[in-house]
Amino acid sequence: QDWRSRKKVQIFQYVFLKWLLVLLIGLATGLVGFFNNLAVENIAGFKLLLTGNLMLKDRYYLAFAALVGCNVVLATCAAVLCAYIAPSAAGSGIPEVKAYLNGVDAHSILAPSTLFVKIFGSIFGVAAGFVVGKEGPMVHTGACIANLLGQGGSKKYHLTWKWLRYFKNDRDRRDLITCGAAAGVAAAFRAPVGGVLFALEEAASWWRSALLWRTFFTTAVVAVVLKSLIEYCKNEKCGLFGEGGLIMFNISNAVPSYNTIDLLAILLLGVIGGIFGSIYNYLVDKVLRTYSIINEKGPAFRVLLVIIISILTSCCAFGVPWFAKCIPCPDHLKEVCPTKGRSGSYKSFQCPDGHYNDLASLLLTTNDDAIRSLFSPLNTNEFRIASLVFFFFAMYFLGIITYGIAIPSGLFIPVILAGASYGRLAGRLLSPVANLDCGLFALLGAASFLGGTMRMTVSLCVILLELTDNLLMLPLMMLVLLISKTVADCFNKGVYDQIVIMKGLPFLEAHAEPYMRHLVAGDVVSGPLITFSAVEKVGNIVHSLKMTSHNAFPVIDEPPITDAPELCGLVLRSHLLVLLKGKMFTKHRCLSGAETLKRYHAFDFAKAGSGKGLKLEDVDIDIEEMEMYVDLHPITNTSPYAVVETMSLAKAAVAFRELGLRHLCVVPKTPGRPPVVGILTRHDFMPEHVLGLYPHIDVHK
Amino acid sequence: QDWRSRKKVQIFQYVFLKWLLVLLIGLATGLVGFFNNLAVENIAGFKLLLTGNLMLKDRYYLAFAALVGCNVVLATCAAVLCAYIAPSAAGSGIPEVKAYLNGVDAHSILAPSTLFVKIFGSIFGVAAGFVVGKEGPMVHTGACIANLLGQGGSKKYHLTWKWLRYFKNDRDRRDLITCGAAAGVAAAFRAPVGGVLFALEEAASWWRSALLWRTFFTTAVVAVVLKSLIEYCKNEKCGLFGEGGLIMFNISNAVPSYNTIDLLAILLLGVIGGIFGSIYNYLVDKVLRTYSIINEKGPAFRVLLVIIISILTSCCAFGVPWFAKCIPCPDHLKEVCPTKGRSGSYKSFQCPDGHYNDLASLLLTTNDDAIRSLFSPLNTNEFRIASLVFFFFAMYFLGIITYGIAIPSGLFIPVILAGASYGRLAGRLLSPVANLDCGLFALLGAASFLGGTMRMTVSLCVILLELTDNLLMLPLMMLVLLISKTVADCFNKGVYDQIVIMKGLPFLEAHAEPYMRHLVAGDVVSGPLITFSAVEKVGNIVHSLKMTSHNAFPVIDEPPITDAPELCGLVLRSHLLVLLKGKMFTKHRCLSGAETLKRYHAFDFAKAGSGKGLKLEDVDIDIEEMEMYVDLHPITNTSPYAVVETMSLAKAAVAFRELGLRHLCVVPKTPGRPPVVGILTRHDFMPEHVLGLYPHIDVHK
Repeated sequence: QDWRSRKKVQIFQYVFLKWLLVLLIGLATGLVGFFNNLAVENIAGFKLLLTGNLMLKDRYYLAFAALVGCNVVLATCAAVLCAYIAPSAAGSGIPEVKAYLNGVDAHSILAPSTLFVKIFGSIFGVAAGFVVGKEGPMVHTGACIANLLGQGGSKKYHLTWKWLRYFKNDRDRRDLITCGAAAGVAAAFRAPVGGVLFALEEAASWWRSALLWRTFFTTAVVAVVLKSLIEYCKNEKCGLFGEGGLIMFNISNAVPSYNTIDLLAILLLGVIGGIFGSIYNYLVDKVLRTYSIINEKGPAFRVLLVIIISILTSCCAFGVPWFAKCIPCPDHLKEVCPTKGRSGSYKSFQCPDGHYNDLASLLLTTNDDAIRSLFSPLNTNEFRIASLVFFFFAMYFLGIITYGIAIPSGLFIPVILAGASYGRLAGRLLSPVANLDCGLFALLGAASFLGGTMRMTVSLCVILLELTDNLLMLPLMMLVLLISKTVADCFNKGVYDQIVIMKGLPFLEAHAEPYMRHLVAGDVVSGPLITFSAVEKVGNIVHSLKMTSHNAFPVIDEPPITDAPELCGLVLRSHLLVLLKGKMFTKHRCLSGAETLKRYHAFDFAKAGSGKGLKLEDVDIDIEEMEMYVDLHPITNTSPYAVVETMSLAKAAVAFRELGLRHLCVVPKTPGRPPVVGILTRHDFMPEHVLGLYPHIDVHK
Repeated sequence: QDWRSRKKVQIFQYVFLKWLLVLLIGLATGLVGFFNNLAVENIAGFKLLLTGNLMLKDRYYLAFAALVGCNVVLATCAAVLCAYIAPSAAGSGIPEVKAYLNGVDAHSILAPSTLFVKIFGSIFGVAAGFVVGKEGPMVHTGACIANLLGQGGSKKYHLTWKWLRYFKNDRDRRDLITCGAAAGVAAAFRAPVGGVLFALEEAASWWRSALLWRTFFTTAVVAVVLKSLIEYCKNEKCGLFGEGGLIMFNISNAVPSYNTIDLLAILLLGVIGGIFGSIYNYLVDKVLRTYSIINEKGPAFRVLLVIIISILTSCCAFGVPWFAKCIPCPDHLKEVCPTKGRSGSYKSFQCPDGHYNDLASLLLTTNDDAIRSLFSPLNTNEFRIASLVFFFFAMYFLGIITYGIAIPSGLFIPVILAGASYGRLAGRLLSPVANLDCGLFALLGAASFLGGTMRMTVSLCVILLELTDNLLMLPLMMLVLLISKTVADCFNKGVYDQIVIMKGLPFLEAHAEPYMRHLVAGDVVSGPLITFSAVEKVGNIVHSLKMTSHNAFPVIDEPPITDAPELCGLVLRSHLLVLLKGKMFTKHRCLSGAETLKRYHAFDFAKAGSGKGLKLEDVDIDIEEMEMYVDLHPITNTSPYAVVETMSLAKAAVAFRELGLRHLCVVPKTPGRPPVVGILTRHDFMPEHVLGLYPHIDVHK
């Protein structure tokens, strides 16, 4: 069904609804993003204020207890939500969204319960002081919102809007979810262009120009919503929110002018970022595999793991600053130093008046504020070298062990924190000879580490530019990102790709593997093929549906209708169920298609939302009906894409991927055999499957 | 041939060469872009200085003669180059690049002569004071450079580098040319991210994530080259170049803060931009059709047309400012006012000391400087209302009548000029109630008109942001672009799409037309089908090649080899010619494929660059050989993509487009007939062809 062939009114309705939906997605994502930040800033702010005030009164043990207590309670809330209600809300969510947009219909990835847990779990998790970000979860949240709106609410929770249930095919849904993912990035970073590019570079598998425009609109809406809400909050109407939360790091008063030493240092930063990044990915993968063993033991174990990591993180944040020396506050400072109440980013910790503890300033604060401190220009000596080294290692390893526990956890913030700390360290070390400000070095360090782990280039570059509002950094940033990605690509894959593989999601790459050139499509066809005759006995259909879990069956026109058996088309399981439910059966083998067609509206066969389709148990057929016949013509797709069995597997894989298919018929080359050899699905192209059939094939040839 | 299956050394060589090439493309495009600007600034600067000095001496007639003389000479140079050497260098070049990347191999689009004319024609054209830009031509130039480097130099001009001749397939070439187009935009606007997005949104038809990265690298190189060259030129080492040329409009000292009236005004600007834009496109189309009649009469007519337009433009630029009143110079100005020699943008024209002529300041200057004046913030009353109104109409209509004459002419600059003038007019009119600066209004006006004509959104937005270096304008700019595009899309297509259609380039849209759903693939197969037997008589092949211009022929295995005739695959004309030239013939019908295969290297069959392939006349076969046989197996592609004749035409079109095919086999549904019904090519999917066969079909159904 192509909307272009509808009536004018319907086209208008369709286009209008589609735009309305992306508008709603933008609004909702913007609101959620703002609410998320507001909640985190207020909860974490309250917690930090409590601890800070107790510290000022020298009641150190009580302060420690307060901090750990708050963190553990928040962490437990997040973990309980995540482990008991929606386990799929754990982690970043970006790999899942990526896989969904590639065509993987994994169960519950975008369910309403996931959305709920993602929002609140992320708030509790970030507020609990974990080294996690809210960016990945925001992307997942955006995608969930898009899915919920796109399928017209959730049937399970009795929230449905009929007028929204207009988008029933894969493509429209995918478009909306791409918009949602872009809106998520835009809401997390306040980076509308970056959001569009992220959706394009990392998330989407298929892309059209029209989609670019729609995504852009969504992120523009998000930007406007956020801007007006922040304007509203400026006058301290939003509790502890203040300026902060939605990160926008101001480094614009530092003019980037650089000399040769700077350039060399930047090249080095790129290489270091690439190496650190690939090691990070390697370790994350190992830790994830370990955790998945623990997580499989049950929800209670998951919660326990979260509590352990939470206590570890709290101890690190509270324990280590004791080893740092006190630094006298710099003169001529606009900020309050050390921190009084809520203002100022210089924490006094155990230090006397007029002094601050630099490590505490980084550790005992929200992650956003820590990044802001690291990026802050001009004051080169704000952090000591030892503090920066320690902070880097803390963030690097806490980031690794935190990802994979049962809370929604983004990877951007930990990576930016670690990267910015070694970048600032480089700036600090080079300050006698370098021209560039150490805040800019921190930015470049963050860029290099991001490039090394996530392997995106253009979108990261634009996101960082939008975060820091300094276009003049563009050439340096590009350089750093290109180098770190190139270096890291020599060792392993990007972190999101690794997670997709680890989770066993059947992700189809855009290119075919080399060994596929030596196989033909017929080689990988597997399993017994079940075909239906064009006018089939009801009993046979019910039996086949019961026995197999196939989603599509070839329909074959046989001699009474045509001269020789020939392939009529493909019929989908869901359509068969609708037809069986309708009970348009005939006593004899005869064509009753035209009549059937009248009874149904095209809409009845539209793809249902996740978990909303008919099940075989819903269809109730008695023994007498089992012996009757049903004409499958009206529901058969008579133009399925097909390849000859001798077609190179590589070419079949390219066709499958580029056309976004779910089923690909394989037809015989020579006549005189049954008109269809088999059906290829996504799983048949997976390396595991192909290499399982042909274990001795040379993978690299 | 997939590079992944090569040996490690070869893979390394391949990857290295590909990166080296994009580096070279970036360097070359950056250098050409800089040279282009330098030349334009110097030539136009000299011309304007001459005229200005004569005006200061009150020798008005002589000044007019000097201006017209210079303009006509420059215009004639550009026109002669264009009309006699490379007619395809006329116009913007963006539509041609777009069509090439869609798979249209139009003759000489990217030939070296086109490159030469494009560079120098563009310099002369812009310097001659035409209302044209150098941006479109830069895109075309970048693509030409990429093509030249990608095919390892030009054989025609005896410039070949063998080590560069590594990329012989369509996909590698297309990738390089996409990079070239992005580099062109980056060089023209100094907008690296904008360049990437332009290549993605407007130029490329197929896109992969890897390409994003490579394009990004190219534009980064361009940005670095330009930046270092500009640094070098800062100390007046480059003649009249000074700061200017590579446009970077500084509006960053104007902070965008806006109220409701501003927002309403911006919405209105968007609507106006959409309406003006669609009218512009309509008129450009009409004028182009008229010009093409004149242009077909011969090169002399083309040159004449250019001279007429040049004189008209000069008269307008010199004549109209007489009607403008003199304005006293504003106080507290850093700039010199009125202009003395080269400094200052306030032209005195006929005015007394301390006064300037605002219309002359816009008309008697380079286009870049005029834009800079229009975008200049703070001084709201710099231009009178009447002047802005007149300037708008002048630019609007001169832009329309200039595009299509035989010079390389970009559309960006005329559109920005016209848009900025009505934007500034709006700012001027609203200045009592509006908060926003009139320079920012001019920027938004330019955005709205660009959106209305070119119908790009994201890339325009980013290009304008990079041009003006002011990220805070992002939400407003997005709003304006979305509105103007939406409004304009109600009336007609984007200007580049219109030109592609007008030039008759067979551009394949990403979606199938609605009426195609009612046809099947077999319906549009046309022409007599010529098939070869797997072991074919040489004479038959030569005869078929002579008689038809088909590029691919189906090869059929016949009974001596197989039981029944079956489709073996497709063979390409170019491969047949190589085989015929090799003269591996046999006396009898026998399989000699294995032997043949040994004699050839895969490289021999690689796709040749434009105009470099073998021709039938090059192959010299005597009568005796005509009676011999040749085994086609080794050169047959045995896995051609094929569809059944009853496949819906819409689905076949989607497959054709998405897989980037050139030939699609149509096979019969029922056995017992010849194993191939026909071959579909790009032209068979064109609306003209389909509607020619079925004139009574309802186009909209």
